[in-house]
Amino acid sequence: MPDHADTTVRVRYAETDQMGIVYHANYFVWFEVGRVELCRQLGLEYARMETEDDSFIVVAKASCRYKRPARFDDLLTVRTRVAEWQRRTIRFAYEVFHQASGELIAAGETLHVVCDRLGRPKSLPAKYRSCFATAGCPPAQSPGAATQRRKAHDSN
Amino acid sequence: MPDHADTTVRVRYAETDQMGIVYHANYFVWFEVGRVELCRQLGLEYARMETEDDSFIVVAKASCRYKRPARFDDLLTVRTRVAEWQRRTIRFAYEVFHQASGELIAAGETLHVVCDRLGRPKSLPAKYRSCFATAGCPPAQSPGAATQRRKAHDSN
Amino acid sequence: MPDHADTTVRVRYAETDQMGIVYHANYFVWFEVGRVELCRQLGLEYARMETEDDSFIVVAKASCRYKRPARFDDLLTVRTRVAEWQRRTIRFAYEVFHQASGELIAAGETLHVVCDRLGRPKSLPAKYRSCFATAGCPPAQSPGAATQRRKAHDSN
Amino acid sequence: MPDHADTTVRVRYAETDQMGIVYHANYFVWFEVGRVELCRQLGLEYARMETEDDSFIVVAKASCRYKRPARFDDLLTVRTRVAEWQRRTIRFAYEVFHQASGELIAAGETLHVVCDRLGRPKSLPAKYRSCFATAGCPPAQSPGAATQRRKAHDSN
Repeated sequence: MPDHADTTVRVRYAETDQMGIVYHANYFVWFEVGRVELCRQLGLEYARMETEDDSFIVVAKASCRYKRPARFDDLLTVRTRVAEWQRRTIRFAYEVFHQASGELIAAGETLHVVCDRLGRPKSLPAKYRSCFATAGCPPAQSPGAATQRRKAHDSN
Repeated sequence: MPDHADTTVRVRYAETDQMGIVYHANYFVWFEVGRVELCRQLGLEYARMETEDDSFIVVAKASCRYKRPARFDDLLTVRTRVAEWQRRTIRFAYEVFHQASGELIAAGETLHVVCDRLGRPKSLPAKYRSCFATAGCPPAQSPGAATQRRKAHDSN
Repeated sequence: MPDHADTTVRVRYAETDQMGIVYHANYFVWFEVGRVELCRQLGLEYARMETEDDSFIVVAKASCRYKRPARFDDLLTVRTRVAEWQRRTIRFAYEVFHQASGELIAAGETLHVVCDRLGRPKSLPAKYRSCFATAGCPPAQSPGAATQRRKAHDSN
Repeated sequence: MPDHADTTVRVRYAETDQMGIVYHANYFVWFEVGRVELCRQLGLEYARMETEDDSFIVVAKASCRYKRPARFDDLLTVRTRVAEWQRRTIRFAYEVFHQASGELIAAGETLHVVCDRLGRPKSLPAKYRSCFATAGCPPAQSPGAATQRRKAHDSN
C-alpha cells in the first residue's frame, strides 16, 4: 500500500490571475484532488464514504506555503500523504512540484474532522482506520506526541 | 413589484486571469448573483424554494456575449429580469454594466427547468407563478410565441 | 492531424454545488481545457501564442446546453473541434461525455476574437491559419455561409 | 484611520459544494475581498499599486481555521486587519462572522511579500509604509518579537 499518492495537475487558464501566475486559493483545490486520489489508492472512494458510510471529511484547518509561482499550462505533481490520524481527525500533507524542473513550488496541510450528514463529529469507521493503518500511517499515540510532531513541522 | 433587479458586483482579483481581465466563466456566477437577488425582490427566497418547496432551479442552457472587458476592482451592475416563464421553465436575461462609464460589457441568458430533489422535472409551484405574474412577467402564451420572441432576441 | 481532441476531466469536489451536481459555470472551464488541448495537438501552444506572437484568443461569446448532470469524481471526456474560423475569429464546439455511460451530458460553443496585448482585434497569424487549414477546418467561405451553418446549429 | 475593515460578503451558490456548505478554498477569496477593502480604506488602491508603483503583493503563506459552516445566501462580515508588517512583508489577519448570529465562523492569516512585476522582492514603497504606520500597525521591531506574537496566535 502506498504511503503517498502522486497526482498530475495541469494549470488551467481559469486558475491564473492578472499577476500572470496561479491564484493562491486554487492550491487548496489541487490539495483536494491529491487527497481524493490518495484515498482511492488506499481503497477508499470518497464519494462512497459520503453516500454509504455517512462519513463526511470536513475541513477544519488548511494552510499553504508558496515557494515559487505556477503558471498557465505547467504540469505539476501533487504529492499527498496522511500525516497523522486519530479517532476523529485526519491530517493530510501536500507538496506541489513543477514537473519540468522538479522544484517544490508549494507545501501545505489540511486537518479534517469526520462528521455525519448533519455535521456532527463521529469516529472514523473501522474499515477506514485499518486502511490508514496498513498504509503505514500510525495514529497519533497521544495528543502530546501529535503536538510535538506538528511543532517540528511548523518550525521548518 | 420590480420587473428587474440591479445588483452591484465588485470584480475580485480571483476572478481575473493572466490576460488582465475577468475570466469569462465568472460572468455566469454574476448572473446567478443577479438571479438570486431578483427572486428575493419578488419575494422568493431561493434557499427556501429548495428546502421548503422541493423546487430546484436547474440550469438547462446558458449563454453570454462579451462586449467589453471587466477588470479587477471594477464596480459592475448586473441587471436581471425574467424574460419568459412557462409551466416548467423560466428564462432569465442579464445585462452587465460598468458603473463608472455606464457601458454595457456583457449580456446573457439562462434557461432553467424546475426539478424536485431527485432531478425530476416538475411544475413551478403556484405561489411562484403568481409572483412572476404580478411582476409583469407574462407566461409565454404558446410555444410558437415563445420561439418567435427568442428568435427576435437571437438576431440582435 | 486531428479534427478534434478528446481530453479527460475528473470532476473535482470544488466543482460541485449544494444541489450535488457540477455548478454550471464550470463547464466553460472544461471547454477551455479542451480548447487548449486541441490547440496543442494542432501544434499551437496557447501560452506561446500570447508571449511570442502577441495573439490573445479573447472570448466573445459562450454558450452551453446541459443535458444531464455531472457528479463528483465522474470521469468525463471533453471533445473539442474547431467549428469554423475566419480571418479574425475562431469558433470552437464542445461535447462533454460521461465516460462510464457514454452519455452526452453537455454541448456548447465559444466564439473567439484574436487580439493583441492591448485588446485590439488583429488577424490570426498565418502559421495558425495553416494549422487550422491542414486540420480540416476550412474557413467560412462567406459571412452568409457561416451564418447559415450557425442557424442550422441553433435550431437543434 | 481604521485599524480594521469590515466587508460584507453574501454566499454565492457557486461557492457551495455538495456537502451543502461553502467549499473551504473560497474563504481565501473572501480574505482577498477584505484585504482589498482594508487597503482602500487606508488610501491604498490595490489596482494602482500594481500599475503605478510596480508593487505586487504576492501571497507567501495562507491559513484558515474553520469553526462553523457558512451556507448559501448567508450574509457574512469579513473583518481584516494588518497584523504586522516589515520592510518587505505584510501579514494580514481575518475573521469571518455570520451576520445573523454574530458567530465567528472562520479565522485566518495571509503573509505577503512585496515584489516587482518580474517577481523580485522589493521594499514596500514609503507611501504605503506611512499609511500602515498611521493606521496603528507598527512594524515588527525584531524577528524575535514577530515570532513571539505569531506563536501566541498559533496557540489559540
